[in-house]
Amino acid sequence: MKRPLIVGVMGGGHADEEHLQSAYRLGALIAGQGWILLNGGRNVGIMSASACGAAEHGGLTVGILPDDNPAQAGEYIRIPICTGMGSARNVINVLSSDIVVACQGGAGTVSEIALALKHGKPIITMGFDARAIADLSHSRGLLAAARTPEEVIAMIKDRIANLTASLPSEDHRES
Amino acid sequence: MKRPLIVGVMGGGHADEEHLQSAYRLGALIAGQGWILLNGGRNVGIMSASACGAAEHGGLTVGILPDDNPAQAGEYIRIPICTGMGSARNVINVLSSDIVVACQGGAGTVSEIALALKHGKPIITMGFDARAIADLSHSRGLLAAARTPEEVIAMIKDRIANLTASLPSEDHRES
Amino acid sequence: MKRPLIVGVMGGGHADEEHLQSAYRLGALIAGQGWILLNGGRNVGIMSASACGAAEHGGLTVGILPDDNPAQAGEYIRIPICTGMGSARNVINVLSSDIVVACQGGAGTVSEIALALKHGKPIITMGFDARAIADLSHSRGLLAAARTPEEVIAMIKDRIANLTASLPSEDHRES
Amino acid sequence: MKRPLIVGVMGGGHADEEHLQSAYRLGALIAGQGWILLNGGRNVGIMSASACGAAEHGGLTVGILPDDNPAQAGEYIRIPICTGMGSARNVINVLSSDIVVACQGGAGTVSEIALALKHGKPIITMGFDARAIADLSHSRGLLAAARTPEEVIAMIKDRIANLTASLPSEDHRES
Repeated sequence: MKRPLIVGVMGGGHADEEHLQSAYRLGALIAGQGWILLNGGRNVGIMSASACGAAEHGGLTVGILPDDNPAQAGEYIRIPICTGMGSARNVINVLSSDIVVACQGGAGTVSEIALALKHGKPIITMGFDARAIADLSHSRGLLAAARTPEEVIAMIKDRIANLTASLPSEDHRES
Repeated sequence: MKRPLIVGVMGGGHADEEHLQSAYRLGALIAGQGWILLNGGRNVGIMSASACGAAEHGGLTVGILPDDNPAQAGEYIRIPICTGMGSARNVINVLSSDIVVACQGGAGTVSEIALALKHGKPIITMGFDARAIADLSHSRGLLAAARTPEEVIAMIKDRIANLTASLPSEDHRES
Repeated sequence: MKRPLIVGVMGGGHADEEHLQSAYRLGALIAGQGWILLNGGRNVGIMSASACGAAEHGGLTVGILPDDNPAQAGEYIRIPICTGMGSARNVINVLSSDIVVACQGGAGTVSEIALALKHGKPIITMGFDARAIADLSHSRGLLAAARTPEEVIAMIKDRIANLTASLPSEDHRES
Repeated sequence: MKRPLIVGVMGGGHADEEHLQSAYRLGALIAGQGWILLNGGRNVGIMSASACGAAEHGGLTVGILPDDNPAQAGEYIRIPICTGMGSARNVINVLSSDIVVACQGGAGTVSEIALALKHGKPIITMGFDARAIADLSHSRGLLAAARTPEEVIAMIKDRIANLTASLPSEDHRES
């Protein structure tokens, strides 16, 4: 079975209005590509905004919850995955994403950027500079910086060609 | 957003032909109801058979992998969730399912039945008798036994009315 | 470095007085052998009783907590390991034990017996019959049944000679 | 029961000779205080060096392994905790430490610094500058920088007075 690309959108429970709007738009654009949006699943901040954008544009949304019950999932999450594992779910967020996009966030988001670098996942930051994390991690090569949702999508398309066996092949994007 | 029921189908990597056929048929029937099939995601046994049945009948399949990369997912898994957590993913299988169906399996499946009982998940066995587990767990009330996939579906429909707030309400089944 | 044997003592948060006394005595005997007692770490039932027995007899106690903070540990736990992972810590209980002893418990304890069978850990039940779990798991060979703490200790000593590379060699027992 | 302070020493599998020597010395000093050293448990880099320093000075060492079997533990680890959870064990490293010390490392270590900040753990870096992580995490207050193992120990002593209920009270340090 061809499977669609899974784009992980990480970001904080609190974010500025401008960043929330960008996250919404990013979700909408991901849906428009036929990709799946995966995030941390809660009903706040970047998680809520990105899921809303995707769901309102017909996209499929997967939320990896720290909680043990789906009542904690945001209303735009179609598939809540309940881990009951708190912050350990950050690892699952990263491992389950073919590409990780990091939006404005706090320490949790920083941990996800570091885990993505550790596991060799391509990662794109949107609207902030995380090169210091990559430098401290000795792995700047995997990190790219975008300013807008449109730029993120263009970068993902560029990177798809370079992605390894763990990813669907190029024509799967349309499925 | 209305979300569809998630039915977890547990079972072993090795199973008899008869049980594999039942698992395939169960997957097909779950898809026919518009429910999501969730399982352990690997390309063997009950996992592979149930995912195949669902996927070939237009159903959405989610696989919670013990592995850290999606290349280990079975070919009929549309959404591979990579945990990199080995057997700890059994807990996620159970917590993420609105209802758990246990098919033929070994110790891993028994652990999932016990975890479902512990977390108060409704659980239906198909084609084998797990009352001993429920007795040892002091919680027979949550466990029901079905002989066929059709009986499983009928039991799930019966139970939906009784399910708690963590579940989609009855009309969500169609969504 | 020679390391001492780690004996995992599983059991419920609620247990009969008779079983609590056996768990206390088992903890004391484990300490007397110079072995480490590992359990689920909480301040209730078999966990509390076995840790108390070990600690009051000079033994080292390790508690693998489902919680994210050590304030939830029982008072006789010297080394609280905080997982913040709920039931997923049951897997760690089993994997970290060289030998698992299962005392009276509920569904959580049954899940640990099944996980021990799955991962090939030697397991001894004390004061109850879990052969039904082993039968359902197709792996009765790893399971032994003892009636008293003294019998458990004798069985562990018998099994040490047969244990595989994952265990300290025989003379480490004295360290 | 009074329990000793648990000091988590994080750091990479690869490190410069100078940093390995500092980690060894830090382990020795932690042992000298009667504190427990907790680390990632593997037989490489900062993990191996810090455990060796502690063990050779009579300290108790706990290793939280990503692996599912204790044969992967370093030789100076007295209590191997086997998670079988890969990088998710980084969360356990942090949650189980009363104080976290971060030595030279890569992305894994950065993830642990971020997780420590997220969970409000006091954290001390030794020999490198991690303020960029704290700035991106909006939580510089918890982070202190030391140049030498001796400075780390002094800082831990300073901080003990300020530590919250999750920590042993001051006189427990001697136990």
